[in-house]
Amino acid sequence: MKRTVIIAGMVLMSAAAGAQETDSALAGRIFTAALTEGRCYQDLRSLCKDIGHRLSGSSQAEAAVKWAAGLMKSYGFDTVWLQEVMVPKWVRGEKEYARIEIPGGRKMSGIPILALGGSVGTGSKGITAGVVEVRSFEALDQLDVKGKIVFFNRPMDPSHYNTFEAYGGAVRQRSAGAVEAAKRGAVGVIVRSMCLRQDDFPHTGAMHYEENVTRIPAAAISTNGADLLSELLAQHPGLKFHFRMSCFTAEDVLSYNVIGEIKGSAFPEEIIVVGGHLDSWDVGEGAHDDGAGCVQAIEALRLIKTVGIKPERTVRAVMFMNEENGLRGAKEYAGRAKENNEKHIAAIESDAGGFTPVSFGTRGTPEQVKRISDWEHLFSGFGMHGFGPGWGGADISQLESHGTALIGLRPDSQRYFDYHHAATDVFEAVSRRELELGSAALAALIVLISKYGL
Amino acid sequence: MKRTVIIAGMVLMSAAAGAQETDSALAGRIFTAALTEGRCYQDLRSLCKDIGHRLSGSSQAEAAVKWAAGLMKSYGFDTVWLQEVMVPKWVRGEKEYARIEIPGGRKMSGIPILALGGSVGTGSKGITAGVVEVRSFEALDQLDVKGKIVFFNRPMDPSHYNTFEAYGGAVRQRSAGAVEAAKRGAVGVIVRSMCLRQDDFPHTGAMHYEENVTRIPAAAISTNGADLLSELLAQHPGLKFHFRMSCFTAEDVLSYNVIGEIKGSAFPEEIIVVGGHLDSWDVGEGAHDDGAGCVQAIEALRLIKTVGIKPERTVRAVMFMNEENGLRGAKEYAGRAKENNEKHIAAIESDAGGFTPVSFGTRGTPEQVKRISDWEHLFSGFGMHGFGPGWGGADISQLESHGTALIGLRPDSQRYFDYHHAATDVFEAVSRRELELGSAALAALIVLISKYGL
Repeated sequence: MKRTVIIAGMVLMSAAAGAQETDSALAGRIFTAALTEGRCYQDLRSLCKDIGHRLSGSSQAEAAVKWAAGLMKSYGFDTVWLQEVMVPKWVRGEKEYARIEIPGGRKMSGIPILALGGSVGTGSKGITAGVVEVRSFEALDQLDVKGKIVFFNRPMDPSHYNTFEAYGGAVRQRSAGAVEAAKRGAVGVIVRSMCLRQDDFPHTGAMHYEENVTRIPAAAISTNGADLLSELLAQHPGLKFHFRMSCFTAEDVLSYNVIGEIKGSAFPEEIIVVGGHLDSWDVGEGAHDDGAGCVQAIEALRLIKTVGIKPERTVRAVMFMNEENGLRGAKEYAGRAKENNEKHIAAIESDAGGFTPVSFGTRGTPEQVKRISDWEHLFSGFGMHGFGPGWGGADISQLESHGTALIGLRPDSQRYFDYHHAATDVFEAVSRRELELGSAALAALIVLISKYGL
Repeated sequence: MKRTVIIAGMVLMSAAAGAQETDSALAGRIFTAALTEGRCYQDLRSLCKDIGHRLSGSSQAEAAVKWAAGLMKSYGFDTVWLQEVMVPKWVRGEKEYARIEIPGGRKMSGIPILALGGSVGTGSKGITAGVVEVRSFEALDQLDVKGKIVFFNRPMDPSHYNTFEAYGGAVRQRSAGAVEAAKRGAVGVIVRSMCLRQDDFPHTGAMHYEENVTRIPAAAISTNGADLLSELLAQHPGLKFHFRMSCFTAEDVLSYNVIGEIKGSAFPEEIIVVGGHLDSWDVGEGAHDDGAGCVQAIEALRLIKTVGIKPERTVRAVMFMNEENGLRGAKEYAGRAKENNEKHIAAIESDAGGFTPVSFGTRGTPEQVKRISDWEHLFSGFGMHGFGPGWGGADISQLESHGTALIGLRPDSQRYFDYHHAATDVFEAVSRRELELGSAALAALIVLISKYGL
């Protein structure tokens, strides 16, 4: 009896050890393939250099749709298709102009600003007004901003290790600043760029208006520009700021999510999504945000094929359209999935830059979070640790009500806001190996979910 | 009785929890200070832009010695001094020239090469010879290389996650290639750059000669150049390579290690060293290698003062001279420490680039390794994991026989060999936050060792 128990125990242990070894070896093969014969870096070069930035509704976004579909077809995915979605079309127009007018006649031209996405223009004469600097919405209540330009100058707090937390603490100035300022009678808004570096590049990004609140123009100013304006204001409280922007919102435009699929061999009705967003802001090349996520998602499927895995569950790479200023693609995708009664067991998003991956964060049931966390040891040899609860991503968040586990790839965040929504977000800012490691992490996680379910 | 035990237990638990909280809070304060009021980034700018690269024996190295001493004095360290050391002086001379001569008359000029450090020159007429390409020393035995140039073209293996392992697998071509080729009658050596990226920048680095083996010139060729040469050789096995280099080794020169110290309040005779090397190769600005380590070591002491800690044990920042081509400074430092009966309990080195820190590796007794590893939880909130046995660093390795725990700061290694020993290793390649995080990690570890001993 005792002997039987021992033997049975040994068999179980051996089976468990064997299964573990296979998963570890498989993860190793995927990482090796990504680092030695990866394609995502050249794919990103093509997206960035042949197409460039690609704001929703632009001709470049249209080109990117064709590019993504063509690329996935060329890699031999089982099915590649487009999913129609109407997207907003905001147009920047001519390059913005801004200057500071110091009492007594001195004018400083060429102040680096960028219209925030969604902003109205200033009219051809521009806006010229005095400036009130604040660092919070609360401060607005203490000040008279009627007829003034409100200058929101709260910096991102550099003490956060995770720079997304610093972003979260400052970004409402950009998204809601125009509404808050207009409610109090301001005529325009200038917002310090969401950037932890001192430089001359303004960072754009989404802002919104509200019903029954006057729509006033809003622009980002570079961090150096913000410091300059703040210093000059301290010396010359009566200075005036002048800016001109010709941006406007046109009619909605037909665009597409781009989807590539490998059909599951055993449970084809169970779907695992891996995605990024194909649109970008209209400066730089959208390399980290989110060209990186797109090419990594496509590469994840290509790697799975390359290393000879036939996934048990269906795997889809989804290039969502219009993450930056509407989430229309994500909403469309989730809506259709619900209509079609599709069962999405997991959705994984890469939308935090093409930097060295350091973890996965999961939003889901405790069981889902635990299942993902239990695989951490398979990734720790590749620098990934601390798996646990966390944010998945904006696009996949639309699947939350489907019971889908939402998983975010977390890269090292230190450099992300050097590039985010700025002219600096170009292909050259991406490291080949860092990008490739992210694609391998996605592929390995997909293979595990495909094998064991979730 | 039972109640007494419970209360005693509660006191113990509370004391332990209290101690832990203090360490965690202290580490947090150090990281916050580094990220919000750090000075190392501007210090690195000064070293890179005001002085630039600084090969041992050069006037820039001399300037860097004065710069480092002045900086540490300006930060108010208790004592700052120079330690004399004779260093080798190798001089590159004029810019190298190389061309490929294809049979039939076509010549391709401007092939990007750099003399390896320590190489002899070619003479003013240069060397022109046929080329034999190999990927290993073993392959040399199968080939006739008499009168030829040996082209060592083994790439770094990209499949390693840790790029230092890839470096270790290829670097003997650079360090020992000339000796191995000369033993078999070759007249020169061209070595593929130790770089994982395809680009046009050759990477220099140390090579050595042996007694009674002819000293033949050796140069690095960029990765693109190596691929070009390899492809042309496949098409034209009879092609010739021509290169000219005027490098030479001069007499040894007096130089210095630069040392700054904060005296321990309780155990001043127990010394903790934190260091980097002040010398660099003579291309680029030695920003990652190892300007980063120098400014981080100085910053670690400055942070300790800034957050108001008076260390129990003596802490020294040591800028070692001549790591790149001799280790003379490290040997001198260890020799003097032994002569003076100094007790070095720990030495920490930052010489793997100013990238996001991900771990500490320790070479020491099992007890020392365990003590450091037990502190990992204090760093895991700052992205550091996997503390355990590991390489300390070349400079501090000279203290190994002293019983000193040798601790290496391990940054993310993905980008290091994009810059290592090349013209690309400039200030602009360093991220402020990544650099600052490394300085905080050093400071926090020093404080722990200072508090608890090792």
